[in-house]
Amino acid sequence: MSQRTRATEPAIPAVPPVTGGAPRHLVSIDDVSIEEMHALFAQADRFAASPRTFADTCPGFISASLFYEPSTRTRLSFESAMLRLGGGVLTAAEMTSSSVVKGESLADTIRVVGGGYADVIVLRHPSEGAARLAAEFAPVPVINAGDGSLEHPTQTLCDLYNLHVERGRIEGLDVVLAGDLKYSRTVHSFAFALARFGANIVCVPQPGFELPEYLVERLHEEFGVEPIRADARRLGDLAANSDAVYLTPQKPHQLSLFTDARGWEVQQVDAVYMTRPQTERYSGNEMSATQYLRLEKRAMAAESLRDAVVMHPLPRRDEISADVDADPRSIYFKQAARGVPIRMAILGWLLGRIDLGVERPAPMPASTAVPLGRNPCPNPSCISRTETRHVVPRFRLIARTPLRAGCGYCTREIAFAFVGCSSTGVYHVPSAKAVGQIHVEHLVFLESAADAEQLGFRASAAS
Amino acid sequence: MSQRTRATEPAIPAVPPVTGGAPRHLVSIDDVSIEEMHALFAQADRFAASPRTFADTCPGFISASLFYEPSTRTRLSFESAMLRLGGGVLTAAEMTSSSVVKGESLADTIRVVGGGYADVIVLRHPSEGAARLAAEFAPVPVINAGDGSLEHPTQTLCDLYNLHVERGRIEGLDVVLAGDLKYSRTVHSFAFALARFGANIVCVPQPGFELPEYLVERLHEEFGVEPIRADARRLGDLAANSDAVYLTPQKPHQLSLFTDARGWEVQQVDAVYMTRPQTERYSGNEMSATQYLRLEKRAMAAESLRDAVVMHPLPRRDEISADVDADPRSIYFKQAARGVPIRMAILGWLLGRIDLGVERPAPMPASTAVPLGRNPCPNPSCISRTETRHVVPRFRLIARTPLRAGCGYCTREIAFAFVGCSSTGVYHVPSAKAVGQIHVEHLVFLESAADAEQLGFRASAAS
Amino acid sequence: MSQRTRATEPAIPAVPPVTGGAPRHLVSIDDVSIEEMHALFAQADRFAASPRTFADTCPGFISASLFYEPSTRTRLSFESAMLRLGGGVLTAAEMTSSSVVKGESLADTIRVVGGGYADVIVLRHPSEGAARLAAEFAPVPVINAGDGSLEHPTQTLCDLYNLHVERGRIEGLDVVLAGDLKYSRTVHSFAFALARFGANIVCVPQPGFELPEYLVERLHEEFGVEPIRADARRLGDLAANSDAVYLTPQKPHQLSLFTDARGWEVQQVDAVYMTRPQTERYSGNEMSATQYLRLEKRAMAAESLRDAVVMHPLPRRDEISADVDADPRSIYFKQAARGVPIRMAILGWLLGRIDLGVERPAPMPASTAVPLGRNPCPNPSCISRTETRHVVPRFRLIARTPLRAGCGYCTREIAFAFVGCSSTGVYHVPSAKAVGQIHVEHLVFLESAADAEQLGFRASAAS
Repeated sequence: MSQRTRATEPAIPAVPPVTGGAPRHLVSIDDVSIEEMHALFAQADRFAASPRTFADTCPGFISASLFYEPSTRTRLSFESAMLRLGGGVLTAAEMTSSSVVKGESLADTIRVVGGGYADVIVLRHPSEGAARLAAEFAPVPVINAGDGSLEHPTQTLCDLYNLHVERGRIEGLDVVLAGDLKYSRTVHSFAFALARFGANIVCVPQPGFELPEYLVERLHEEFGVEPIRADARRLGDLAANSDAVYLTPQKPHQLSLFTDARGWEVQQVDAVYMTRPQTERYSGNEMSATQYLRLEKRAMAAESLRDAVVMHPLPRRDEISADVDADPRSIYFKQAARGVPIRMAILGWLLGRIDLGVERPAPMPASTAVPLGRNPCPNPSCISRTETRHVVPRFRLIARTPLRAGCGYCTREIAFAFVGCSSTGVYHVPSAKAVGQIHVEHLVFLESAADAEQLGFRASAAS
Repeated sequence: MSQRTRATEPAIPAVPPVTGGAPRHLVSIDDVSIEEMHALFAQADRFAASPRTFADTCPGFISASLFYEPSTRTRLSFESAMLRLGGGVLTAAEMTSSSVVKGESLADTIRVVGGGYADVIVLRHPSEGAARLAAEFAPVPVINAGDGSLEHPTQTLCDLYNLHVERGRIEGLDVVLAGDLKYSRTVHSFAFALARFGANIVCVPQPGFELPEYLVERLHEEFGVEPIRADARRLGDLAANSDAVYLTPQKPHQLSLFTDARGWEVQQVDAVYMTRPQTERYSGNEMSATQYLRLEKRAMAAESLRDAVVMHPLPRRDEISADVDADPRSIYFKQAARGVPIRMAILGWLLGRIDLGVERPAPMPASTAVPLGRNPCPNPSCISRTETRHVVPRFRLIARTPLRAGCGYCTREIAFAFVGCSSTGVYHVPSAKAVGQIHVEHLVFLESAADAEQLGFRASAAS
Repeated sequence: MSQRTRATEPAIPAVPPVTGGAPRHLVSIDDVSIEEMHALFAQADRFAASPRTFADTCPGFISASLFYEPSTRTRLSFESAMLRLGGGVLTAAEMTSSSVVKGESLADTIRVVGGGYADVIVLRHPSEGAARLAAEFAPVPVINAGDGSLEHPTQTLCDLYNLHVERGRIEGLDVVLAGDLKYSRTVHSFAFALARFGANIVCVPQPGFELPEYLVERLHEEFGVEPIRADARRLGDLAANSDAVYLTPQKPHQLSLFTDARGWEVQQVDAVYMTRPQTERYSGNEMSATQYLRLEKRAMAAESLRDAVVMHPLPRRDEISADVDADPRSIYFKQAARGVPIRMAILGWLLGRIDLGVERPAPMPASTAVPLGRNPCPNPSCISRTETRHVVPRFRLIARTPLRAGCGYCTREIAFAFVGCSSTGVYHVPSAKAVGQIHVEHLVFLESAADAEQLGFRASAAS
């Protein structure tokens, strides 16, 4: 490798970094600032230009792929990235069939593997919040390679990186999300990230598989995104059977200039992001519904798609027909290939071997342990429900009055009837004024009055 | 490693090669010229002499083992070779349990893995022709590590390399093939390669498991090989119950000098190649047949075997008894060990890191897509039958009049009753003169007149 | 890496070692001398201090993990060690599902993998004695990573290394072994090793799961260990329900100074070694017994444990409660982490890349092949019973009069009624004087007189 080229670029330290302090993890896409993402993209550009010349980035470092459910593509992408960086790879592709049998907790496995076997852990797990739990216990960085249907942040970073490469920017792009927008974790994360970057989203859902209402609300709350009806005639066949919706962070008064009764007219779009039907999550009724959306050669002739790149997180089944593969706008195989340089950037960064040169964002506020009572998380796939040995239920406040909170692991909103204070022993309705006074570490979520009384609480005089 | 030694030997480029143009694949042993094989053997000799000193051959390069059926031996042999060359290895040893479940086609998997994860793909697949299909789609070299019962070219190269090492040449050797000559893919490939090199073959089959007649015919057609009865008395116990046959590329008039009523008398042979019973392919009747051939210490005393090396592709069961292991003529473990240097040579060559210094042979003529109608391949294990999403049926002509063709993937001869021309819309009997005039890209293979008429063809006036 | 630091330390050869002669294996902890263990600990200290700077120790070398039963922890620990040394790793984590299916013997697999694929084999196998068999056939070092319930020597070396690091010595330490002392292979090996080093053992068994009597006897025979009743009041909760026993290599007259009617009073102990219930080996009755021992925060307050480190071979279930994890005396995660540097030392040593600077101990006397008759080993899990193709039953003498012998693979004592001499054709009772005169290679173990006569032996006139 040319030393000169290197000299003017972000430094790769010549010696192993001092790993003092808590490691940086990648559990959620929200853990990464926009500035860090831009820096990662720049780094990935360098790696992509000459992938076989960076073997001096992580020599002597080891990653461990701990996969509690199979995913060859994701695993190989990470392992390829680590090898390209000159590191070594430990593979446990079938965790379910080994130490798990002997009844070991995830927390223990993580402490052992992270305690001396590996310098970074790439974790895939079927339970939501598993990566959050792993990060709590790991002495080394944990990268979430998919936890249930919650997060898969490196897939989202890869998707964003592809827009960066193909379009040179993300802000202000018009991106079509097509297909199953209801169950696809990938599409949900991507939609949030697009909103965060200030891109516009054209939803072209499979009928019956629209983006869930609560997600649209969250997009509005967090990024000021406004949903408006879209006139998708220029999208042609692709949107023929869909009610398209335009999600934009632009202010409504600006929009009103451009919309009429038919809604916002879709003009040139920058990218179409197709998703496969998540059949494994369908109920019988949904399955037998109408035929799934299919992007074919003819559909690519639509006016709005003239300059659009076609993306797909893969694997695909029939939603993009083979005759589209040769179209130069089809970038889905390039998209997958770019998973390697972006993961090289992520690994090098978390291992302290690449300095992004941007300030570390303030960490997400820590969650709080539930002081007593049962686990209030209602999500049966949450790691706090599936692994009980080393997990203490935790929560994060969403709102104070009336009190709302989410699970500290899977983020699912907690359902409860009353709120107790573990200090005073009194319980209240969630909207009671007194609830606002309870110290966060004393909050107890109660299902019912019976539940409260069984735990020794007495009803508030006010309620 | 000594730089001086290197200087006088085939060059290993100091920088990554320019991978312009289509990659070179190893799908079939027929893809490699005799000259290339000799050059590979010479390269393998160097590697074998000092296997741990070539780590600068493929630094930064990555191979991916994609195994759709398990084969520890073959996989480890390739991975060892890649590690010895200084490369990295991605392993997907159980492809059937991962992305396949999500319904991904082989063509897509190959494009993803070859698009950015790995620099070379080592593929094992249960469907015949799978490696041919993979090579069509892969941006990087594909090495066939076994596709159904069709090809396993690196096993054959390993076997030939062993003869090269042990005997110094292959041409003119007398090689005994013993055991199940009917079902063993390994033995079929080896027989063809021996004939190509001009070696003689002594068939000592398990009774009922003779070399199939069509293979003997192909050996005659392609290499002028003549089968003659053999007098195998000097082979002793080994051939006691077999009707031996001698296959030689020599001209019959030469042979007549040496044969009498008992047939060609087997003298000193150079190698005995034992094969295990391929019980997984036996029908019930065949199974319960006579006891399988067994090479024991006593049999090794036979006059003809005095200087013969004993080979076996392994794994063995009981066809070579343990008391033969210590015999210096038993080279089967060495034979397996030599799989590493020959695979090092193959990997280094296909990755463009070793220049064999011989001219690249003209590529096999491309196959032709069947323009319409159903897939004419009669082989139920053919990749064109088992994977339909991204496969267009293809064929290669064998003869023009009467028309004969083989499947473009599995090479199995296509069975048909009539031939249509997609341009004129007329169909003919295969022997019709008009068939010879049909442009190859217009050829349609028809099962029956009904089939033809359903596709809109009309009968030829001539037929 | 600093070259200066290296200069004064045990040499790592600059070139591949000459591997003349038989390789050194690690089948049993008994294969390693105390001096070698101390040298390995010193080496491990170096590796632990700077694990990422020793990649020049084994460049170009390859280890193969052959795992016939899953064990992610052990496998990853070895593979991490090999990668840290700069070597490459071949992984066969699911041997049961691949070549085994084709009926290959362990002896053949070992010869193939050791013949050219790998420079060292790490073997895990469910049959006792499997590693001993593998070592017989392997051209390269074999490391036993667990064979049935017989040996797992690198676990024991790791445990001893932890005492070395935490206490600076092993001799004279007081070590509590707590929990299932009956079925835990780990605890049995550790107990023997402690006795060999001259440490004292405090047995605190789960009631009903005491250290087996034959082990206590062997400890006495081999190391002069005396078992005495122990007064474990100062061990507090941990020993509340157990009858503690003190095993010490000290002479009884010294002990008598310190013991009264309540037995030896446990004072400060140096380490507590907890073990999980080996439920997979329990019968139904044992299972439903009393609740398993549990080390909790409160128990850690016991006077005797003030300076004790808490060890556990992991995985744990509930026998150490989560509230003990944060206690600085809890070293079980460190203990697991130290498995990497000690395995680095072992790999580097067996590969001839690290010179321990101590003399190689005299090898264990070779075992002797049973000249005829059936396999006398009574252990149904012995490799000599489960793999018959390339195994000849072997034995080692324990005593001459009356004759006692152990299986040459699994070491289990052989049961027999009579002893025959294959030279004279006469058989005797084991205590007969004549038995002492039979040449070891002529010894035949006979189940019964009928057995003897069937094999053509005649009764001794004396018996």
